[in-house]
Amino acid sequence: MYNTKLVIEYDGTNYNGFQIQSKTKNQTIQGHLERVIHTLYGEKIKSIICSRTDKGVHAKGQVINFHHSKDKFENYTLIKAMNANLPLDIRVLDAEIVDLNFHSRYHAKGKTYSYLIDNSVAHRPLWMKYSHHIPHPLDVKAMQKASTYLLGTHDFTSFKGRKGVTKSPIRTLYNIDTNAKDRYITFTIEGNGFLYNMVRIIVGTLIIVGRGQLQSHEVYEILKQKDRSFAGPTAPAHGLILEKVYY
Amino acid sequence: MYNTKLVIEYDGTNYNGFQIQSKTKNQTIQGHLERVIHTLYGEKIKSIICSRTDKGVHAKGQVINFHHSKDKFENYTLIKAMNANLPLDIRVLDAEIVDLNFHSRYHAKGKTYSYLIDNSVAHRPLWMKYSHHIPHPLDVKAMQKASTYLLGTHDFTSFKGRKGVTKSPIRTLYNIDTNAKDRYITFTIEGNGFLYNMVRIIVGTLIIVGRGQLQSHEVYEILKQKDRSFAGPTAPAHGLILEKVYY
Repeated sequence: MYNTKLVIEYDGTNYNGFQIQSKTKNQTIQGHLERVIHTLYGEKIKSIICSRTDKGVHAKGQVINFHHSKDKFENYTLIKAMNANLPLDIRVLDAEIVDLNFHSRYHAKGKTYSYLIDNSVAHRPLWMKYSHHIPHPLDVKAMQKASTYLLGTHDFTSFKGRKGVTKSPIRTLYNIDTNAKDRYITFTIEGNGFLYNMVRIIVGTLIIVGRGQLQSHEVYEILKQKDRSFAGPTAPAHGLILEKVYY
Repeated sequence: MYNTKLVIEYDGTNYNGFQIQSKTKNQTIQGHLERVIHTLYGEKIKSIICSRTDKGVHAKGQVINFHHSKDKFENYTLIKAMNANLPLDIRVLDAEIVDLNFHSRYHAKGKTYSYLIDNSVAHRPLWMKYSHHIPHPLDVKAMQKASTYLLGTHDFTSFKGRKGVTKSPIRTLYNIDTNAKDRYITFTIEGNGFLYNMVRIIVGTLIIVGRGQLQSHEVYEILKQKDRSFAGPTAPAHGLILEKVYY
């Protein structure tokens, strides 16, 4: 038995999220990957996903692993063979045979997400599919300050989508970087793990701060409430990119 | 009479270039702009383009100007009205009434273009439409060194596409920045003006250097030949972005 780890980039625009769902197998990224793995290895294989990104969310560094009975391909050959059979908006960037007990989700030590806001007068075409357009003025300093209240280890229940089924709501955020340049604002968020919709709810809350409808320090009050209804709205999926997973 | 200047961003993927051609009026960016200007001002108006970008080339800061008989709109209102009538992949980012004799092409003092190469094993989905994929190893230092031979004022005939009809082939390049990060290579090229296909032929030549098929210093020999056949191939349109025009 072998265990192969893949690093994948995808444009989530045209997919119903990463994870296979009963009725939408072919419109999920996992569905496409398992179809191609089946073709190449000649066996039905279940893949293990690191991050179950939602409908419309993108990734530059998603990780999966899968067990297979034969060592059929060199790493480079597997990358080429996978890509030859996948849609152009899903690409395998790296492949390697790893330890049999490696688990792409359980062994992840941390992840980085980025969220891009286009703060121009018009939603600019070049990064349109990967940015959330907000034409209103945003106070970047206030957003940056608000983000610092979320750093560290907290119960993030207030920032968890209602569909989330994770056992513990405790997560640690290592860093939130706020970069404003040329009317683009990028939040880069690193943590040991994220609850369902957590990044999008954090960004939705920071946007309310940026618009002056919430004070920076009130973000800490929201955190303490442990109640989703106190936080801001969930920012749209298409601004979110899973940048990297750390092991 | 009034003279209005517009700054425009567009994704060139679906267009036959910027300039109106006899049979493809509606598939050009200028065609769309003039259609909307006609609708808004109620008069047939010819626009003056700064840079006639080719089929498939993108822009973040294209500039046009046009003369009109009535001062009908505030700047912000004009931006909104233009964008409400344009396709989503063409956006007006700025509008202002300028001096009557302002000419978007003749008064341009300089321009910046960027060219993006995706040097990963697979053509990555997220910037696929705006990058040229080269899976082979590229010697970035050799490309950077080669680019320095092109700086300054030269006869760029060797780097001019055959269709170009400009009177003088003399241009000045102020800077070529070569940035390599995360397997993306970006060339940012600033000059007082560019001949037909000049940026794409420069990049095509630098790529040959990067692949080791040409020595860095030979780029200077090519320049001295004043003959297009000595330079490298024209790099594909979709990696090129007109970043900015200076006045």
